[in-house]
Parts: sequence; structure tokens; C-alpha cells
Amino acid sequence: MVTQPLRIAVLGSTGSIGQQTLDVIRQLPERFQVVALAAGTRTHELAKQVAEFRPRYAVAERRTAELDDALTANGTRWCDMDEMAVAPDVDLLLVGTAGAAGLTPTIRALELGRPVAIANKEVLVMAGHLVRRALVAGGGSLRPVDSEHSAIWQCLWGEESHEIRRIILTASGGAFRDYDESQLDTVTPEQALNHPTWKMGAKITVDSASLMNKGMETIEAMWLFDVPMEKVDVVLHRESIVHSLVEFSDGSIKAQLGVPDMRLPIQCALAYPERMPLPPAPPLDLAAVGSLHFGRPDISRFPCLRLAMESGAEGGTYPAVMAAADEVAVARFLAGEIRFTAIPAIIEQTLDRHESTADPDLEAVLAADAWARRVATSIPAGAA
Amino acid sequence: MVTQPLRIAVLGSTGSIGQQTLDVIRQLPERFQVVALAAGTRTHELAKQVAEFRPRYAVAERRTAELDDALTANGTRWCDMDEMAVAPDVDLLLVGTAGAAGLTPTIRALELGRPVAIANKEVLVMAGHLVRRALVAGGGSLRPVDSEHSAIWQCLWGEESHEIRRIILTASGGAFRDYDESQLDTVTPEQALNHPTWKMGAKITVDSASLMNKGMETIEAMWLFDVPMEKVDVVLHRESIVHSLVEFSDGSIKAQLGVPDMRLPIQCALAYPERMPLPPAPPLDLAAVGSLHFGRPDISRFPCLRLAMESGAEGGTYPAVMAAADEVAVARFLAGEIRFTAIPAIIEQTLDRHESTADPDLEAVLAADAWARRVATSIPAGAA
Repeated sequence: MVTQPLRIAVLGSTGSIGQQTLDVIRQLPERFQVVALAAGTRTHELAKQVAEFRPRYAVAERRTAELDDALTANGTRWCDMDEMAVAPDVDLLLVGTAGAAGLTPTIRALELGRPVAIANKEVLVMAGHLVRRALVAGGGSLRPVDSEHSAIWQCLWGEESHEIRRIILTASGGAFRDYDESQLDTVTPEQALNHPTWKMGAKITVDSASLMNKGMETIEAMWLFDVPMEKVDVVLHRESIVHSLVEFSDGSIKAQLGVPDMRLPIQCALAYPERMPLPPAPPLDLAAVGSLHFGRPDISRFPCLRLAMESGAEGGTYPAVMAAADEVAVARFLAGEIRFTAIPAIIEQTLDRHESTADPDLEAVLAADAWARRVATSIPAGAA
Repeated sequence: MVTQPLRIAVLGSTGSIGQQTLDVIRQLPERFQVVALAAGTRTHELAKQVAEFRPRYAVAERRTAELDDALTANGTRWCDMDEMAVAPDVDLLLVGTAGAAGLTPTIRALELGRPVAIANKEVLVMAGHLVRRALVAGGGSLRPVDSEHSAIWQCLWGEESHEIRRIILTASGGAFRDYDESQLDTVTPEQALNHPTWKMGAKITVDSASLMNKGMETIEAMWLFDVPMEKVDVVLHRESIVHSLVEFSDGSIKAQLGVPDMRLPIQCALAYPERMPLPPAPPLDLAAVGSLHFGRPDISRFPCLRLAMESGAEGGTYPAVMAAADEVAVARFLAGEIRFTAIPAIIEQTLDRHESTADPDLEAVLAADAWARRVATSIPAGAA
């Protein structure tokens, strides 16, 4: 059987997820083809990617002479992300952008009945209800790229979602998992950026240290797997080998395991419903690993997890406000302006002042986001 | 939707698996119904089961007045296991018998296109190729009941069997997992019968201590999941929480976990493709468990594992000879006649003397079994 390669639009192609996606595609050229690349400010990297993959479409936040040359040399057309999402020669959209930029392309592709491989947290945290609605309306599908959500997704293949009793996200615990409250009070940005397992950007690494990243993942899980927050649980697992678990109605638990390597969940999302015969990561040798540890997250030390789960359960514009306040608070922490323990304090104060809108449309979500950024910025360091 | 209860024939109803099967059925009377019960020598227990479940058919190795009364009082017909397997009012056959007795009912039900929930090791070890052939010919299906094979089966739901890279059976390691070779030389039957996790019969508990039980499970896995022995692996896991794992072509690993309780895999096998909304066992609290350990089995201390895997890979009548020699050797050990370390020696000597038949029919399998019993019995204790 000769299969045409799957034509993929990679949004956020110069970021960590985007680059690893291109790495997966590079290994399987007979199965996957890059037809569109969207980057932010890294135009030099994008020009190189255009030269290598010769996509039909490319876009970045600005044009440069180098990029223009690459576009011309490879017959690549300048085209924005929303257009890529609906272009007739795109089979799958991979959303590896950070922030709200991935939102409308995601919704447009889903409304058109397309599969969207999603690595973008904010899209689901801010507007999961809108994404879900587009998916149901258009018959598209979401394929998670995050290692945790990919694990859950894989555990659900061949299962019925109404038989989910509990989704159990594993958390490495971040850089400060063994710190007590007084130690947390004095940690530096440099310490926060030293994640024990995954190498990631600054914002997400701080979010890992505060467990806000895990909190956002609980909200993503709600929308990806259509379960209420009371069915979502978090367990600490420092080795990051068990990527997450699902407990079913009969008490049986399934888990997905592997060495921590983002290329595996990326490849899963691209190849579904098949599995490619090429492991993108070294195989896991469980006997060599020896032991796996599990524990309960300490919400008193890491209140961000509680704040995120409460926002997700409340719904409305609360999750968008929570995410925006976190982004501001993390930036203020990284700038040396506030202490690490002030991050949850700023988020909580912002949430406390917020009046949520029920079932907000995109405009209301973005308004809540902007409002939260103003409020979170205005809270004095001493008050947090 | 009103569903008719699934009509189940329970072969081996007074044994451990049979009793736990009845326990599962008892909890879900609107879904499952006992229509046939087959026991061995425990006629008193069978009479009580007949009175409780009022099956259409029952059988035991002998009739007693008490049993006859129960049959008459409940309108139950005396009927052998082969007849039960093909009775028109049986939807599913559960084979919980030990030894070769389950073989022909299994084959008959499969030839008729029926699902067979199988807990019987010997059937697959001795004649897996015949069972597989009946399954393919009749369009029936095998649903494993063993916790390890149920785990693998559950991990394969929604997956393609050609994408299996490796089946990883977990082994608790048995009663002597921490003993060195000289300690193994002097263990008593009493020590061998003290299994760390599962409460089972004497033969299977000794087989657990020698790792022969795990070896037989590797052969079962070959036939249940249609994979060659080189794709089957064993990892030590003393907690018996991870019941087994599957590694797929892309390197992703799935595992099934739960507290050790046979009622969960039994319920899975009966309920498939659904999961019942009633956990038969207490839920697993991974954070409370705390840690899970994995290691490599030591084949030099536990040669039975190697003997079984080699027999399985060779095929023919070797697995039947291996299983029969083991049964004799274990009985001789339990009778105080030979040392624990003589068990693999007797099996190996019996295998060495055997000339295997390729693709043996049932008669050839049973002849090899009888031959192996004679040889294994004749090997002097001093020579083993």
C-alpha cells in the first residue's frame, strides 16, 4: 500500500516543540511532509527551515531580506497562520506556538473537521470550552503533544471516555520539590530555571517549579478528554518515566511509560492511528531504571496547583485570568521584582478581584486576559 | 438499553478462579448469569453453588446423593464439559480448570466462534498451536484471566498486534527471590508455599518460587497475542502492582496496574468490550504505595524460566514435555523426595531425552505428556 505523506503545518516551528516536530518528520520523510511553517521572531532559523523543507507556506512576525530570499528560492508563499489552518493542502495542524496566537488557527482547523496536534497550553486553558465547541461542531479532533496528555490519550485508545473514573497526571515536582516553605521564599530565578528532567523555556520551567504547569495541565485534561475537574488528579513522580495514568470504572489503571523525550508524543500525534516502526527516543529499560517513586503533591507549599484546579472547576473567565496573572507574576519573578512565593499570591489576589463571565466568547476571554495582566502588574511586590 | 445477561459456563467452579468468578457474577446479576458449573472432586461445594445459581448444567468427577438432590431441586441437568462448551444457551466459557481437562472444551467453544475466558495455563502451554488454530478457524476469541495476560490484553485494546515490539511480563520473583543458590538448595516445601503476594494452590506457588510459572506465562503470551518468543520478556517487580507491560514499535510502553486481586481480570474478561462501573477490588493508591521496583530475573538461580522460554521457542511437543516434567518434579519436591534445585534438573534431563514432533496433534501432545511423566518420575533423586 502506497500512502501519500501526511501534509503538516507546523505553527511555532522554531520553538522547542516545533524543532522536535521537524526532527520527527525528518526521520520519516515517506510518511510526513512539511507544507507550512510559522515562526515568531526567529527569522534566521525559519529561513533555514524553509530552505530545508521547501514548504508551500511560511510566516513569521516580520519579514527579513534573508527570509524573502528563502521564500523566493523555494517557491514558498507568505501566508498567515489562520490561512494555513484552512489551506486545502494541509492535512494536520501542529500547534507548537506559545500564548494566545495558536487559538484561532486551532479553532478554524477544528471547525473544518481537521486533526490538530496541540502542544499549546494557553489555548486550552484560556478557551478550552471554545476549542471543544469547534471540535464538536466541525468533527475535527485534538491530538495531545504534551507527554502527560499523550500518555492519557494513548491509555484511552480502545476505551470509552464515559468509563474514565480518574485521570492521574504525573508531576516531576519541579526544581523545588524538596524545598520547605522558608527555602521557597528565597529561591532565585537561576535556581527556578534548573528543571530536574525536561529542558524547556524559562516561563514553563518556573511554572514547573511552582506546579502551575501541572495545574494548567489539569485544565487541559478536562478539555482534551471531556471530563470534569473532579475526575482529574495529580501524583508526584520524580523520575518522569510514567507519563500519566487513567483509572477506569472497574478500577483498572493503565499507564504510559517511556524515557522523557518529547519526540515520542509528537510522533504519536502525527502518526495516529498508526504507530511508526521507528522509536524516536532510546528504549526504556525498566530493570535498569530500578525503581519508580510516587507521592502526593503538597498544596500548602505549592498553592499554584490548587489555584489552577479551582479556576478550572469554576470555569468562565477564571482560567484565562489565572493564566494571565501567572504570566505576569512569573515575568516579575524572573525580573527579580518579586519572590517566588509571591507568584501564587499575585494570582490569588487577581482571581479574588475578578468577576467571571459565564460561557465567555473569545472577545470576553481576551478582555479578561488583558484585565488580569493589568491587575497582576499593579499589585505591589510588598502586598503579594 | 436493556441488555440480556451474558450466559456463562464456569469450568472449575469450586477452584480459586471459579470461586472468584462466581463472586464477580454475584455482584453484577443484571449483567452476568451462570448457566453451567463444572467441578472436580469438591461435590459438596458444587451442590451449594447449584443451589445458589440454579444453573441449567452441572458436572463433577463423581455424583453424590447431595449433588443429585441439588440437581433435582434446581432443575439442573448433568452434562459434561465438552457439551457445555457447545450448548446453545452458553455465551461465554470460562476455563478455570487446572491441567489438560480444559483443552477440548476450549477448542470446541473456539471452533464454534465463542469467546473463551481462559485461566488455564496447561491448555495454552501444551497445545497453544491447536487452540490458536481453532480460534482462527472458528472466529472465536480468547480473553485472558491471568492478571499478567489480562494486563497485556488491556494494553492492546485499540492497538495493532503487528505493532508489538515486546511483551514484558512482570514477575514478583516468588518466595525465594532473595535466596542465593546454596539457600535454594535447602529450602523446604513449607517455605516454597509461602508466596509473597498471591494466595494460590500448592503447584502454582512452587512454580512461582522456581519462576516456572512465569516461564509458562511466556508461552501463554505467545499464543494469546500471536507473537514469537523473542518478543516476550520478563522483568522482576516485587510489588505485583504493575501487572505487565507492552512496548510498541515506536518505543511507547503501556502498562496496566492495580492492587493484586484476581477479580479484576476476571471481570474484565467477562465484561469485554465494556468495563463495569463496579470495581471488584479496592482502588490502587499509587502515592500510598510510594515506590515500585524492577529488576532482571536471575536465570542462573532460576533455570526454570530459561527452560520454559526455550521450550516455547522450540515448539512442537517440547512445551508439553516441559510442563509434564515440571508437574512430576514439583510433586516429588512437595513429597520431600527431591531438593528444590532438582526441579529444573529433572525438567532439563527429561527435555534432553525427548524427540519432539513438529506440529503435533492432540494425540501426539498427550502421548508426549505421558512419556514425560514416566521419564521425570524415573529420574533418581540423586541424579537430578
